[in-house]
Amino acid sequence: MQFVPKCDDIFAAAEKIRPHIHRTPVLTCRNLNLLTGAELFFKCENFQKVGAFKFRGASNAVFSLLDSELKKGVTTHSSGNHAAALALAASKRGAKAYIVMPRTAPAVKKAAVESYGAEIIFCEPTLQARETTLAEVQKETGAIFIHPYNNAKVIAGQGTAALELLHDIPELDYIIAPVGGGGLLSGTALITSHLAPNTKIIAAEPANADDAYQSFVQGKIVPQTNPRTIADGLLTSLGELTFAIIQKYVHQIITCSEEAIIQAMKLTWERMKIIIEPSSAVPLGALLERKLDIKNKRIGIIISGGNVDLTKLPW
Amino acid sequence: MQFVPKCDDIFAAAEKIRPHIHRTPVLTCRNLNLLTGAELFFKCENFQKVGAFKFRGASNAVFSLLDSELKKGVTTHSSGNHAAALALAASKRGAKAYIVMPRTAPAVKKAAVESYGAEIIFCEPTLQARETTLAEVQKETGAIFIHPYNNAKVIAGQGTAALELLHDIPELDYIIAPVGGGGLLSGTALITSHLAPNTKIIAAEPANADDAYQSFVQGKIVPQTNPRTIADGLLTSLGELTFAIIQKYVHQIITCSEEAIIQAMKLTWERMKIIIEPSSAVPLGALLERKLDIKNKRIGIIISGGNVDLTKLPW
Repeated sequence: MQFVPKCDDIFAAAEKIRPHIHRTPVLTCRNLNLLTGAELFFKCENFQKVGAFKFRGASNAVFSLLDSELKKGVTTHSSGNHAAALALAASKRGAKAYIVMPRTAPAVKKAAVESYGAEIIFCEPTLQARETTLAEVQKETGAIFIHPYNNAKVIAGQGTAALELLHDIPELDYIIAPVGGGGLLSGTALITSHLAPNTKIIAAEPANADDAYQSFVQGKIVPQTNPRTIADGLLTSLGELTFAIIQKYVHQIITCSEEAIIQAMKLTWERMKIIIEPSSAVPLGALLERKLDIKNKRIGIIISGGNVDLTKLPW
Repeated sequence: MQFVPKCDDIFAAAEKIRPHIHRTPVLTCRNLNLLTGAELFFKCENFQKVGAFKFRGASNAVFSLLDSELKKGVTTHSSGNHAAALALAASKRGAKAYIVMPRTAPAVKKAAVESYGAEIIFCEPTLQARETTLAEVQKETGAIFIHPYNNAKVIAGQGTAALELLHDIPELDYIIAPVGGGGLLSGTALITSHLAPNTKIIAAEPANADDAYQSFVQGKIVPQTNPRTIADGLLTSLGELTFAIIQKYVHQIITCSEEAIIQAMKLTWERMKIIIEPSSAVPLGALLERKLDIKNKRIGIIISGGNVDLTKLPW
């Protein structure tokens, strides 16, 4: 039985992680407003530590543990932003982090995790190998598993990005977050439904990895089987905790083509002069495809991260 | 006889252009601090309107003209950021802008200038053709020529970027600006020598286009003959006005290899998650090459712009 996060957990998370995170800026772009006919407010988690919102959730999880609990370290399996986030959060408490990573992970991601002092345990690039290896690491080390999204402290931490956005920009008509495992989305939904009940909560997902949309429509978790999208942060399936919150509070899930993701990413680079990763471009991509009636609306968009291999750009 | 800009002209420019420009942020990056051993403060003119500091000078020039003077419009020759800046500044006053541009200018630059409502007059891609064509345009239209840098109002406008930086970040040991024609550098030097006399004023220049360095050392303007650098904003020679100020106030000109420019540009994209153009990477590139003793120093760096063709990256 897992602990279910509530709105107060997000307020508590905000206080707990405040000394450790960046309070990221909210940027606007007149040019993109003209293009979409709406007023867009971008919450720039690409400027967060480790380059992604994931540091909020990982920090909240790690800083919520007692010293005694942390003695044997923390562990997770991830080849992405959560791995780097957990590694940095653990290092800030002087704790060990064991990161299970597929052998095939990009060198740049391995280097990032190592630079924060974490120990990497390599496994074959399958979900089963990841889980088996993680179980072995837990058994050998006694480290505490911090799930990338299906964890109440992680969800509460991720919700602090929307909390800051709602503080900075009142009276949004919509708030849009990308959805992969649902940690960011469920934290966003929890805090927004509480603080801004008139703001509609929208998720954006690649059409080629639309398990959250399918789950939302069918009323049960539909696992992601064969995702074929450039949005490498959005490949995972929903968890029980995140799905329950999404079902309750999210108004709509909109999807976005691969072409629109790339177009939105390039537009953001060109017009806003900021680096965003493909996953972060999914909300704007869906708006460019007119998946939502946004004429003259005030729209908050959470830019989830900015970690991109600059030698492999999609244009 | 040209009007020579003074420090008060920069204060006046700041007031004049305040309603029209962005007050750009100063960003820091722990990672780049660790790498250089210094404390770096980046004044982000890549977030300025038209994506470059040039809008400050062009605005000051255009908003300093009387309605009667503006009736016949303004003109310049440029294929770069000054062209877009002058076009936008003129459009904000409802005035015509005639931009002389080489036939060979990139389509994206033509499109930018046209999007601000300016009229483009194409010429052959030589300096002589530019000047002849400009003279014809002036004769036919009566438009006022706004030189990209050898113009007191332009220099005063460019100096407002450093003014904001010095207001935001006190007690800098160094302030570093890239140098091409010297508009940004001379404005920066004027205001810094006045407001922060203990702050050393440094220019950074590509080693493969080091006419400013040669001019500085030889005590006379050495024209740029065959620049071979990726820093496409730094190809021009100094002007009389800018050189006089540079001689008087600049402490040192440091140069940077092409490899270091590319490395600094990529590092900034990766670590700071912001898009900067090659010219903007020259100061950091020179620091990476240890051209200055910066251990534990506080260093302001002016990021001049962020206009890059994303389909032609140098890595």
